Amino acid sequence: MNLTEDPIYQFDVGNDQQAMALALIQAGFGMLNTTPNPRVGCVIVKERRVIGAGFTQPPGGNHAEIQALADAAARGQDVRGATVYVTLEPCSHFGRTPPCADALVRAGVARVVAAIADPNPLVAGQGLAKLQAAGIDVMCGLLEEEAQEINIGFLARMRTGKPWVRMKSAASLDGKTALHNGLSQWITSQAARDDGHVWRARACAIMAGIGTIAKDDAQLTVRAIDTPRQPRRIVVDSKLAVSPQARVIQGGGTWVFTATEDKEKTARLEAEGAEVIVLANADGKVDLPALVRELGQRQINELHVEAGSKLNASLIREGCVDELLVYLAPSLLGEGRNMFDLPPLDDLSGKIGLNFYEVKQIGPDLRILARFN
Amino acid sequence: MNLTEDPIYQFDVGNDQQAMALALIQAGFGMLNTTPNPRVGCVIVKERRVIGAGFTQPPGGNHAEIQALADAAARGQDVRGATVYVTLEPCSHFGRTPPCADALVRAGVARVVAAIADPNPLVAGQGLAKLQAAGIDVMCGLLEEEAQEINIGFLARMRTGKPWVRMKSAASLDGKTALHNGLSQWITSQAARDDGHVWRARACAIMAGIGTIAKDDAQLTVRAIDTPRQPRRIVVDSKLAVSPQARVIQGGGTWVFTATEDKEKTARLEAEGAEVIVLANADGKVDLPALVRELGQRQINELHVEAGSKLNASLIREGCVDELLVYLAPSLLGEGRNMFDLPPLDDLSGKIGLNFYEVKQIGPDLRILARFN
Repeated sequence: MNLTEDPIYQFDVGNDQQAMALALIQAGFGMLNTTPNPRVGCVIVKERRVIGAGFTQPPGGNHAEIQALADAAARGQDVRGATVYVTLEPCSHFGRTPPCADALVRAGVARVVAAIADPNPLVAGQGLAKLQAAGIDVMCGLLEEEAQEINIGFLARMRTGKPWVRMKSAASLDGKTALHNGLSQWITSQAARDDGHVWRARACAIMAGIGTIAKDDAQLTVRAIDTPRQPRRIVVDSKLAVSPQARVIQGGGTWVFTATEDKEKTARLEAEGAEVIVLANADGKVDLPALVRELGQRQINELHVEAGSKLNASLIREGCVDELLVYLAPSLLGEGRNMFDLPPLDDLSGKIGLNFYEVKQIGPDLRILARFN
Repeated sequence: MNLTEDPIYQFDVGNDQQAMALALIQAGFGMLNTTPNPRVGCVIVKERRVIGAGFTQPPGGNHAEIQALADAAARGQDVRGATVYVTLEPCSHFGRTPPCADALVRAGVARVVAAIADPNPLVAGQGLAKLQAAGIDVMCGLLEEEAQEINIGFLARMRTGKPWVRMKSAASLDGKTALHNGLSQWITSQAARDDGHVWRARACAIMAGIGTIAKDDAQLTVRAIDTPRQPRRIVVDSKLAVSPQARVIQGGGTWVFTATEDKEKTARLEAEGAEVIVLANADGKVDLPALVRELGQRQINELHVEAGSKLNASLIREGCVDELLVYLAPSLLGEGRNMFDLPPLDDLSGKIGLNFYEVKQIGPDLRILARFN
C-alpha cells in the first residue's frame, strides 16, 4: 500500500450510500473556491473500488465529473461499465465548460447516481434526462440533505434569485454582544473567532455596515485560516461616509451600497478600486431587500453578514436573513448591548420564529445555527 | 423468557463497566424520592448474570444494597461469591437503617465495586475499609463522573455543607425572558416547560422570590409530571409581604426566609403551616449566603431556583449559584427583559465565567446546563 496515496482509493465501497458519502467529502474540497459555481464532488466506482475522484475546480476549470474521469484515466482505469456518484446533477449545457452529461455518455459509464437535481434553469433535470436517453441507468436523491447543505447558497440563488444570507453574532450566555461602553474584545474564545473565519472563507461575500467599519476599521477579510480566495467585501453605507482610506476599501473590489448620490466621493472610492451602487428606499436608507436581490444578480451564493445590532435588526426585520450563526460564550455580562436592536413587542405573537439547525461546541463556546421560519 | 421480567436479568454482563452502568440505571429509579439520602443503585452479578438489583427507598426504607440482597433472596439466588456493584460506597454507620457494609459481609459476597467513595463524614472510606477487613475484594472509582452527577446535591452538601444550587431560566435566543410589559407566557415550548418540571421534581426544594409569587401567584409545585414527593417550597421575602392566602403557602410546609421580624404576620403564616426564618443582612435584605448554608443544615441537597431577574442576579453576585439550567427558544424578542439584572461592567475582565456542561434539544428548544467556574 502506497502511504502517500489518497485513502479514498483504499475503501471497499459496500453500497451507494457509502460511495455518495465519499463524493460529498470530495465536494467539500471545493468549499473555498468554486463560487459562483456549486461545490460538487464525484467518485467513479467499479467492482467496489473508487477508480476516479474529483471535485469542482475554480471557475473556468473542470467540473467534478470531468476531474473524476481524468483522474481515472491518469490512474490507468477503465471507466466503461462503472457507476458515477455525483453530489449534484451533471450539467447539460455549455457554460465556461462543455456539458458533463455528454462527457459521461462518451466515457461509457453504466450508471449515474446524483444526490440532488440541479435547480439551475439551464439544467433542471435535463442532465439526468440526457444520460437516461443514452441508455445510462440513472438515480437521483441520495444523501439529499447533506448535498443541499453544502450548496445551500447556490441552490437558494437558483431557486429564489437571492443568496443565502447568514448573519454571524457572538454573545455571552445572557445575550450581550458588548459591554455598555462598547467593549467586546473578546467575549468568545480564539477557537470560536477562528471558526468564524472558516465561515467567512466559504462565503462569496462578507458584509458589514458603516458603523462597524468606522468603529473597528474592519477589513472584512479572512485571516485566521489560509484561503485560496478572499470573499468580496460589501459595505452598507447609506450616507456614503466610508473613507477611501478605510482598510475595507484598500486592495480593491469592494462594493459600497449607498442611498446617497455623490459623484465626487464615488470617484474617490472608484479610484481605490471600489464600486458604488446606489439603492435608496423611501426613507433615504439603503434598500436592503433590493441589495440582496442585486447580490443574487451578481452571482453571490452565500452572503456572510458581520454587522452591528442596528444593521442586523434592519436586515432581520426586512426579511433579508436566512440563518443566524451565533457563538455563545460561557459567561454573563449583565447590562450591555443586545444582539439585535429589534423594537419591543406588545405580545408574544409578534416574536420572530427560528428553528435550531445545529449546535456544536467550539472550544469553550457554543456555536448555534438557527434558521428563520 | 418471561416478558414481564425486568430486562436487567437478561443481560450478559461482560465487564465491570457494564455492571456499573446497570447499577446507575437502578440509582436513577430513586431520583425523585430518596432525599435527603443519596440516590444509590446496586446490582449483584454472578457468572455474568444479574442475580439481584435494587435502589435506595424513601427515607427510613432500605438502602440499595439491602434491596439488591433481598431481591436476590426473593429470586432464590445465592449471593455467596458474587460481585456487588454499587454507585456509592456502602455505609458503615447506623442511621435510620443498619450499616450496609455489615449486611454485605454477612451475605458472603466475594467482591464489591463502588463508583465513588462517600464523602459523608460518617462513612468516608470506612464502608470500604470494613469490607476489605472482612476479606472482600474491594474496588472504587468506576464511572465516577456519572455517579457524581446523579448525587450532585448530596455530594455538594457533604463536601461544603451547602446544597447544589441550580437556577432555571427560559429565554429567547437573544436572551430575553419576557417582553417589556412582562409578558412571558410562553417563550419556550410545552416540551421545555414539562422538562423544567422534571428538574423541579428531582430537587429537594424549589425557591422563588416574593416578586414571582406576587406576580404569578406561583405554586412552586411539580405538576407536569407524576411525582411521589413534592419538593419543599421556599420563598425569599425580605419584607415578609407574602399573603397567607398565596398558593405557595397553601398546603403547608413552606419556608419563608425574610429580613423582617413581624410576629403577627409570622403567626398568620404559621397558622397555614409555613415556617418563617429571619436571616437579615446589613442592607435589610435576606442574607442569601446564610440562607444557602441554612438549607444545607436542613438537609437540602439540590435547590431549584425559579426566580425573577433581580433575585437571580443577587444570588449570582453573592456566589450562591452552582449551575444555570437555561432553556433557549428559537425566537427573537427584541427589546425586553434580561435574564439577570446584573450591573454593567466597565471591562471584560469582570465577566462572570461559566462552563457549558451539557446541551440538549428539548422539543424545538435548547436546554443548556452551564456551571459557574
